[in-house]
Amino acid sequence: MPGNTFGKAFVVTTWGESHGRALGVVVDGCPPALALSANDVQQELNKRRPQSAPASTSRKEPDQVEILSGVFEGRTTGTPISMIVYNRDAKSGAYDHLKNVFRPGHGDITYFKKYGIRDHRGGGRASGRETLARVAAGAVAKVLLDRKGIDVKAYTIELAGVRVSRIDIKAVGKNPFFAPDLDAAQRMEEKIKQIKESGDSAGGIVEVTVTGCPAGLGEPVFDKLDADLAKALMSIGAVKAVEIGAGIEAARLLGSQCNDEITPTGFSTNRSGGILAGISNGDDIVVRAAVKPIPSIRIVQNTIDIHARPTTLSVKGRHDISAIPRIVPVCQAMVRLTIADHLLRQRAIAQAF
Amino acid sequence: MPGNTFGKAFVVTTWGESHGRALGVVVDGCPPALALSANDVQQELNKRRPQSAPASTSRKEPDQVEILSGVFEGRTTGTPISMIVYNRDAKSGAYDHLKNVFRPGHGDITYFKKYGIRDHRGGGRASGRETLARVAAGAVAKVLLDRKGIDVKAYTIELAGVRVSRIDIKAVGKNPFFAPDLDAAQRMEEKIKQIKESGDSAGGIVEVTVTGCPAGLGEPVFDKLDADLAKALMSIGAVKAVEIGAGIEAARLLGSQCNDEITPTGFSTNRSGGILAGISNGDDIVVRAAVKPIPSIRIVQNTIDIHARPTTLSVKGRHDISAIPRIVPVCQAMVRLTIADHLLRQRAIAQAF
Amino acid sequence: MPGNTFGKAFVVTTWGESHGRALGVVVDGCPPALALSANDVQQELNKRRPQSAPASTSRKEPDQVEILSGVFEGRTTGTPISMIVYNRDAKSGAYDHLKNVFRPGHGDITYFKKYGIRDHRGGGRASGRETLARVAAGAVAKVLLDRKGIDVKAYTIELAGVRVSRIDIKAVGKNPFFAPDLDAAQRMEEKIKQIKESGDSAGGIVEVTVTGCPAGLGEPVFDKLDADLAKALMSIGAVKAVEIGAGIEAARLLGSQCNDEITPTGFSTNRSGGILAGISNGDDIVVRAAVKPIPSIRIVQNTIDIHARPTTLSVKGRHDISAIPRIVPVCQAMVRLTIADHLLRQRAIAQAF
Amino acid sequence: MPGNTFGKAFVVTTWGESHGRALGVVVDGCPPALALSANDVQQELNKRRPQSAPASTSRKEPDQVEILSGVFEGRTTGTPISMIVYNRDAKSGAYDHLKNVFRPGHGDITYFKKYGIRDHRGGGRASGRETLARVAAGAVAKVLLDRKGIDVKAYTIELAGVRVSRIDIKAVGKNPFFAPDLDAAQRMEEKIKQIKESGDSAGGIVEVTVTGCPAGLGEPVFDKLDADLAKALMSIGAVKAVEIGAGIEAARLLGSQCNDEITPTGFSTNRSGGILAGISNGDDIVVRAAVKPIPSIRIVQNTIDIHARPTTLSVKGRHDISAIPRIVPVCQAMVRLTIADHLLRQRAIAQAF
Repeated sequence: MPGNTFGKAFVVTTWGESHGRALGVVVDGCPPALALSANDVQQELNKRRPQSAPASTSRKEPDQVEILSGVFEGRTTGTPISMIVYNRDAKSGAYDHLKNVFRPGHGDITYFKKYGIRDHRGGGRASGRETLARVAAGAVAKVLLDRKGIDVKAYTIELAGVRVSRIDIKAVGKNPFFAPDLDAAQRMEEKIKQIKESGDSAGGIVEVTVTGCPAGLGEPVFDKLDADLAKALMSIGAVKAVEIGAGIEAARLLGSQCNDEITPTGFSTNRSGGILAGISNGDDIVVRAAVKPIPSIRIVQNTIDIHARPTTLSVKGRHDISAIPRIVPVCQAMVRLTIADHLLRQRAIAQAF
Repeated sequence: MPGNTFGKAFVVTTWGESHGRALGVVVDGCPPALALSANDVQQELNKRRPQSAPASTSRKEPDQVEILSGVFEGRTTGTPISMIVYNRDAKSGAYDHLKNVFRPGHGDITYFKKYGIRDHRGGGRASGRETLARVAAGAVAKVLLDRKGIDVKAYTIELAGVRVSRIDIKAVGKNPFFAPDLDAAQRMEEKIKQIKESGDSAGGIVEVTVTGCPAGLGEPVFDKLDADLAKALMSIGAVKAVEIGAGIEAARLLGSQCNDEITPTGFSTNRSGGILAGISNGDDIVVRAAVKPIPSIRIVQNTIDIHARPTTLSVKGRHDISAIPRIVPVCQAMVRLTIADHLLRQRAIAQAF
Repeated sequence: MPGNTFGKAFVVTTWGESHGRALGVVVDGCPPALALSANDVQQELNKRRPQSAPASTSRKEPDQVEILSGVFEGRTTGTPISMIVYNRDAKSGAYDHLKNVFRPGHGDITYFKKYGIRDHRGGGRASGRETLARVAAGAVAKVLLDRKGIDVKAYTIELAGVRVSRIDIKAVGKNPFFAPDLDAAQRMEEKIKQIKESGDSAGGIVEVTVTGCPAGLGEPVFDKLDADLAKALMSIGAVKAVEIGAGIEAARLLGSQCNDEITPTGFSTNRSGGILAGISNGDDIVVRAAVKPIPSIRIVQNTIDIHARPTTLSVKGRHDISAIPRIVPVCQAMVRLTIADHLLRQRAIAQAF
Repeated sequence: MPGNTFGKAFVVTTWGESHGRALGVVVDGCPPALALSANDVQQELNKRRPQSAPASTSRKEPDQVEILSGVFEGRTTGTPISMIVYNRDAKSGAYDHLKNVFRPGHGDITYFKKYGIRDHRGGGRASGRETLARVAAGAVAKVLLDRKGIDVKAYTIELAGVRVSRIDIKAVGKNPFFAPDLDAAQRMEEKIKQIKESGDSAGGIVEVTVTGCPAGLGEPVFDKLDADLAKALMSIGAVKAVEIGAGIEAARLLGSQCNDEITPTGFSTNRSGGILAGISNGDDIVVRAAVKPIPSIRIVQNTIDIHARPTTLSVKGRHDISAIPRIVPVCQAMVRLTIADHLLRQRAIAQAF
């Protein structure tokens, strides 16, 4: 009933507050005998570290992960894999001015209403920092997917209103926004600088593509693969919409335009996003997540304090201007976790029984 | 691990094929002592019956529901509520020409690849008819939500490219598309007629609004209320995108535009869609589902048969032109189930312990 | 959170009251392409029908099962298998004198305290009749286990104080108590007759043996195979103790006596009951369930009514003298369900990934 | 599907190997605002530390617990409570002679057959040391139960064949075996000394009593309170039988002897063990677990190595002679976790909806 666990076969439980002692994750259900090292996980974590990009905070987090269990002599054993990252550069004093005030657009007010108590330091559990544990778990899923030849790519297709014009995967690692279009990346950088100066923040859209995924993943009727992908991405704090394949545009197409015709060598088009009736069809899986702007802004806003008295707030401190690019590896991790989970689930009922 | 169950506290399990003996649902976890009759359920089911609207099939389904357990002397007992609808007007012979052919845009091919076997009659479990069981379960959730003053409304805001210009709830019941705008409804009707004549099909967008929902529902971090709503709606066969509040447009707003300022009497705006950090904030919850066109069309399309040989297909038989309006009460039901589930989940950890 | 579902991979949900319209079960997660007919299920159900044995009620229940979904052209499809048995010979009037009285040893009082409402007719959901749905589900599990060469046998080793002296499986079907010892069965019959005449009831012990079970089933650390077997058997209304292998006697053995030595051809003894550290070891699995006497007796007992006023009660009507033999196929079914569930769970993480 | 998680509302996930870097647990679902300190947990952990008792190992484990999340300013916040204990005195070299040999009575062989890989150091995940995490979680449950006036007591009623003659709770803390009878404790000590000298080991029986538990806990029909208690206790490595109330003896009683008569002030007797039809009846809950002897013994035994070649084994190193007394707080913890879980589950459907 509580909600800090994801998956049914590849089961991930995260814990930890932004400014608590540590954050971590337990991965249960990972098959045995897979080669896994702390370095495999660290590499993924490094992708979500604050960078020199204009959109990111200046907080310095080494985010050094340690694997505490489930790996013996470099291989998974089938037992739970526990990973931990201690919080080191957490200046909670910087949050004192927020102690009794609810930040607009933030979970401050809802956590308070739900629990009657909250850890106000940096958003506590609602902080984007929580996603670190997801990325660590996603790194374990990656090892599993690599073994099956399944590759999950994530990149930014829109930031602050700037849309990419092409998908050049090689470009993704060469710009601070994980954009698959270096020209667009440059325009994003300029736009973000302007917004930063004005004390405001920006949103964007992340696309995730899965190649090499076998047909047959996804469980009818509620645990459809697209339903679980939607949940996975929407569970990321800043995400406000999820699309599969043609997405919202599917609502405007005619059936003859939206259907992907089938040929002996595969589908002619991919408006389905690789999923039909909730089950993967063997084509590339394509999902997108719309990310809202970071709610913590310097611009003054009306709000109330915990006694419901009106006040105004200008949020200071180290904050990202946009959840992008740091949210990109998080989206990638959530898709990896979902595919890994369904891969294991499908094995349980596989035809060759 | 299988996927025919939804919810963790208010738990719904559906079963049945489009052209099998019957369809049904078991609702487990419903609190005791709630007044519930077969008529309460029937009323909701009637909303998804084929109507004389141009978008709907001419198949005649009385869809008479029977409550088999869990209700004693007109009140729920706390035990599982089993409901059944027998299939009566199921002409499976009409599907014989589809036996060995995969319909583009349909789950025929993925079910076959997943299970190596399929019930080809009318889509089997992947048929839209499966949603009947969801609506029956949603009728039970409705009784629960009514008790708490929570009201869930669903309506069509776009069909075949025709967008409504206003949200007039009183209009919803007065047109065959459940549109909250009678003018738009008329244009929808014309558009659908044209599409029908051309042997094609159309999609649209459904919006669901929840009023009276208390703050505090939703479980961080994975079972966020919006994550579960996204899963709920994306689990409906034809849905390709889900938006919460500002949805995709949130990606294009600045923080100062997207944040809802807070006043002592509530939020000034509702771009959040009533959910912050995955927890309801007490404002109206607003979600939208983008529905793709019905894949079964008369227009000839390329496809393959079960031996992977190329062929063409023109789908005959009784088919809807659009999942709208029949999908509207299904979206409503799925939102009701999600809210009911989180209502019960929240009770378990409520503050006044 | 509610409790009418068993299993995580082979998932069984039961519903229905003793004197309601019908009882049934939904089996979700059954692999596709298994041959299954209503007759396979009926055969198992017939084993728990009231017989002419002195221990059983005279209520006549045809208990005719119907498969409503999940089977197409004689084979499972991978979708939920829904089965139903309508109640026909349910004389609820016979229970009117119990309407406001709590029967000692029964769930009347606890259901009332839990739900504040109860279906008093024949125990409602707490009736032994509920187990009919378990046996139907167990019949589906049997098909799966047969395919893997796993055989589950159940028999009575003690009834009303009469213990069997041998385990002769061929004898089990030849006496009304499912005892593997015809001499003991005769003494049981005499003992039961005496107890019936005195208006009292009796308990006993059921043993279940699983042969052909592969090593490796069971999930550490909480979902151990023996833990799930204990839950499975203890979830049967009348069961008050569960033993694995040496059971309680293990507490009195020395380590050198209790350990099963290992040889290249297997274990020398089987005090472990085929399970080590919660995982099957390839030897026969042996479990036992202690069954309390039927609480409904003709002998007058002190009790209270729903207003907490003292009264006395002599239970009339058609009641078994002992849950044995009808509970024997129920124990068998629960063990089958547990093994089937763990068989599928093990496949998900199998070594050959 | 994996098995390292216990509970549905009060959800506990444990991780860690006996000789790995650390062991720990994540408790999800604990209500907010409960006072909780590391000291509360440490006190419970200290009860399972090796003592000077003859039955316990000489390994020195400080077992210092740290709370890493979920507690802010001394109170629970409703978010996951992560606790960790680092392994310090783990001499894994002592296990080198066991690397390729399967210890009789141990999970060595089943872990190897299940996963094809094992952490041989000290039993890895199958070690009794894993239960440390359960006790830590149980300490959190204790805080919850204390708040509701529910008290869980655990004690040894039999060790190495020596049975207690009385239940004097005050005696439990005054002897190294947690026996409620000081005379019996002395005889236990003598018996254990003898067994230790002979290089053998011993088992026993633990009883757990719950007082103050409200009526109404337990979910029909599979998640009965007694079914979940049976699973909880049977999930402890060494347990081979579980009894509720009259337990196995119930099988030998007549109905008139086994039923607890009901009076306006409560039940006249308590053969039910406080549970009727799987739901607590308000009386004391009484459960017992039979514990087998520690399988690691000095006495030489036949076994095989990982290549299935016959060999003999005499286990050296620091080992307990009996799981008792260290298993007593573990049984107590598992009962606490089960009651806490059902307490929260019951709240979700409580009558006053």
